[in-house]
Amino acid sequence: MPASKINQQVVLARRPDGAPRVDDFAVIESPLPALADGEVLIENLFVSLDAGFRKWMDEGSGDHILPAMAIGAPVMGLTLGRVAESRHPDFHIGQHLMARLAWERYSITDATDFLVVVPDEYDCPLNWHLGILGDTGMSAYFGLTDVARPQPGETAVISAAGGAVGSVAGQIARIYGARAVGIASGADKCQRLIDELGYDAAVDRLADDLPGALADACPDGIDVYFDSVSGPLLEVVLDQINPGARIALCGAVAAYNSATPLPGPANLFQLVTNQATMTGFMTHLMHERYPEARRQLLDWVEQGKLVNREHMLKGIESVPTAFCDLFAGRNFGKTIVALG
Amino acid sequence: MPASKINQQVVLARRPDGAPRVDDFAVIESPLPALADGEVLIENLFVSLDAGFRKWMDEGSGDHILPAMAIGAPVMGLTLGRVAESRHPDFHIGQHLMARLAWERYSITDATDFLVVVPDEYDCPLNWHLGILGDTGMSAYFGLTDVARPQPGETAVISAAGGAVGSVAGQIARIYGARAVGIASGADKCQRLIDELGYDAAVDRLADDLPGALADACPDGIDVYFDSVSGPLLEVVLDQINPGARIALCGAVAAYNSATPLPGPANLFQLVTNQATMTGFMTHLMHERYPEARRQLLDWVEQGKLVNREHMLKGIESVPTAFCDLFAGRNFGKTIVALG
Repeated sequence: MPASKINQQVVLARRPDGAPRVDDFAVIESPLPALADGEVLIENLFVSLDAGFRKWMDEGSGDHILPAMAIGAPVMGLTLGRVAESRHPDFHIGQHLMARLAWERYSITDATDFLVVVPDEYDCPLNWHLGILGDTGMSAYFGLTDVARPQPGETAVISAAGGAVGSVAGQIARIYGARAVGIASGADKCQRLIDELGYDAAVDRLADDLPGALADACPDGIDVYFDSVSGPLLEVVLDQINPGARIALCGAVAAYNSATPLPGPANLFQLVTNQATMTGFMTHLMHERYPEARRQLLDWVEQGKLVNREHMLKGIESVPTAFCDLFAGRNFGKTIVALG
Repeated sequence: MPASKINQQVVLARRPDGAPRVDDFAVIESPLPALADGEVLIENLFVSLDAGFRKWMDEGSGDHILPAMAIGAPVMGLTLGRVAESRHPDFHIGQHLMARLAWERYSITDATDFLVVVPDEYDCPLNWHLGILGDTGMSAYFGLTDVARPQPGETAVISAAGGAVGSVAGQIARIYGARAVGIASGADKCQRLIDELGYDAAVDRLADDLPGALADACPDGIDVYFDSVSGPLLEVVLDQINPGARIALCGAVAAYNSATPLPGPANLFQLVTNQATMTGFMTHLMHERYPEARRQLLDWVEQGKLVNREHMLKGIESVPTAFCDLFAGRNFGKTIVALG
């Protein structure tokens, strides 16, 4: 009985102003309450850091997906943990679960928080289920397989190309036969895109002449744009799309930090003159197809066509740092904190 | 032999600054040259006025579709005419042709200017081939049938709802069983949307509280947006889309007048959270399906489900006025000038 256990939680100390800073968060300790009927106690083993949660740190940001986070409350996020105690008929000790819970050592839940049992039929480390086999891997897989559909010989541009989603998306674009061009910040990261992820070319988002650098990397124009950044970069890409281009929008990191919305691309008319399509998608609505996607991704890993990259930190006190790393471009691959 | 004929042409007197004005254009007279081998002399009977041509009146606006128009040269536009003389093997006197020629009484062409023989198997006035059976009718038909696909019970919003495209699109949305909501400028035009085109509701784009007016007209949210305006209106609509919404972009009237590009919608993330799609299209790439579309549109007209509305002016000297009417909101239905 863990009633005497002390929990450690990362709470929102204040609302971030722009990019989040480590001192926007605080680690607090509190005794764990006893479990009520219908509840489950989860010992969180891994926290997944996802830029998308930044949005709900703003005042009044609640929407049909999640409420706005409260000051002083544990920060909402995706975790993977082990059932330590259960008073819920559907869960038993030792099960591994993923859920939209919070940045904390232990979570108590009545199992309404988007709880998913980690499938045990895949031969891979547990934490892959938060990354390459989790929502970010699924975003890359469905965004390319269903939405953007790169064809052999086409040019596919990936934004945030070294991030959790982009690092998988670029490799999948190449598996489908496209030329993969990654956009990332800084020469070092660009070199890593080519060396570690197999991108055919890389473009430094901080280049003095970004349109020129992109054009040099895409001499045949752009057929597919897999975008998890949005903002001004989308406008630069739109100017270089080919007829029939497909743009998959899986997020908008550039917008998460902005209190006032960023202006959108001024050249949406490029969609008209190129008969192009821009499609937003969220993979959690495709849950029933996750097994197909996981199997395919693991097959590619086993065939040596796909590598899994992670930015792994350790300990609950590292969670704010890991989250801020996402916005400072210090991550490469999926960002995860191991709590165990 | 019409070598002694005097031609009348509308030329670009100066580049419009923002919305075009009548004195941006001038009517000049010049003798018609003799026909060379391989050329056709066309007596233009109707000029079609299309806001899209405004774009190519700007300096440096040439693209892969058309070159920028030259000062002093006849203004490019769509015309329907009759072959008055032919030294081209494929054309004979009396044939009716449509082409991307110019605002002029007579045109001489070597038949490379997107010449199309007007089909004679449809029982309708000739000028319908520039409107409801022409590119604007095709935009409405394919934009709804192929791109936006309104379903019974859904809400379809149409911008520029009384214009050449919108006046057809709103009616087609209703034929497909959707609730059609039109956006137009001014109370009078809004009333005409309901009275003359059968819209279920109309929203005045000049309303003090446009988002509120749109929400009142769309209590169940927006499933389809057929947009030929773009600009700030798109942002207002995006805020009210439903999951799975389809946005068809068939033009961007708001952008044609702007020397500096207008900022795009700041809320493109709405596409992500609603898994929505925005697709640009140009119907001239669907030429092989025009017969299917014309047949269907005429059937609907004969069944009393679809009415054809035209804003018809007369005489070559009225062409600049008719063009400026498009941007001043003085048109309702397809704008055409009869030259004969």
